[in-house]
Amino acid sequence: MQKPPKPPHDWNNVVSRIEIESGLTEALDNLNEFSHIIVLYWMDRVSAEPLPMKVRPRRDPERPLVGIFSTRSPKRPNPIGKATVRLLKRERNILTVSGLDAIDGTPVIDIKPYLPGYDSAVDARTPPWTQPHSDT
Amino acid sequence: MQKPPKPPHDWNNVVSRIEIESGLTEALDNLNEFSHIIVLYWMDRVSAEPLPMKVRPRRDPERPLVGIFSTRSPKRPNPIGKATVRLLKRERNILTVSGLDAIDGTPVIDIKPYLPGYDSAVDARTPPWTQPHSDT
Repeated sequence: MQKPPKPPHDWNNVVSRIEIESGLTEALDNLNEFSHIIVLYWMDRVSAEPLPMKVRPRRDPERPLVGIFSTRSPKRPNPIGKATVRLLKRERNILTVSGLDAIDGTPVIDIKPYLPGYDSAVDARTPPWTQPHSDT
Repeated sequence: MQKPPKPPHDWNNVVSRIEIESGLTEALDNLNEFSHIIVLYWMDRVSAEPLPMKVRPRRDPERPLVGIFSTRSPKRPNPIGKATVRLLKRERNILTVSGLDAIDGTPVIDIKPYLPGYDSAVDARTPPWTQPHSDT
């Protein structure tokens, strides 16, 4: 029997606390002037041995098998996650954000300001199998 | 005498060739269904010893000194660059893209599809010192 795919978890309202090494506190100055930041994190608890070359997006049996680099699957050669999150607060070396889809304790490897003109693409095209819910 | 800041280089029209390890060719399948991809790269030729805590954006003396995590400066604890680029072509393990602001030979560490609903923030706010050209 096939397990039905779980509905995607809504991470938008998940609030996370990011603790940056205290020696780097000053490097966080001015970050509070941005509404959104980019968080790069190392998905250290992903088991990717052997690494699959293809996966079904959201493990949904109704979606096609596609190359891992065409997905956001955590199973990838370098398990780096990238999220655009809302910055709610910065206090010294602690950032409070919402929308970070990382499990608790995941190491954060970089923080960048989100720059709409640089980080977004207004005319982006994506295939139908990336849509949150199937039409059928 | 102070050197005037160089005008920012326009990378949008720069075309780059990304060569992925040939053993991972199949993992690139379906990528051509996306107009834009995210490239993470390791800025291996950046000299960041000692690491500054603050920099002036675009090395412009008229911009304020701000924390490095508030900038896209290549001088950062983990020298990871992140670019949203247009995918022009995929041929086997070779991607041709435009808009990649990395110097020739920079190691690419991950490729992800650009998903507008996940990667962009429609209501993003940024401070005035991030603007491409000063008003004055």
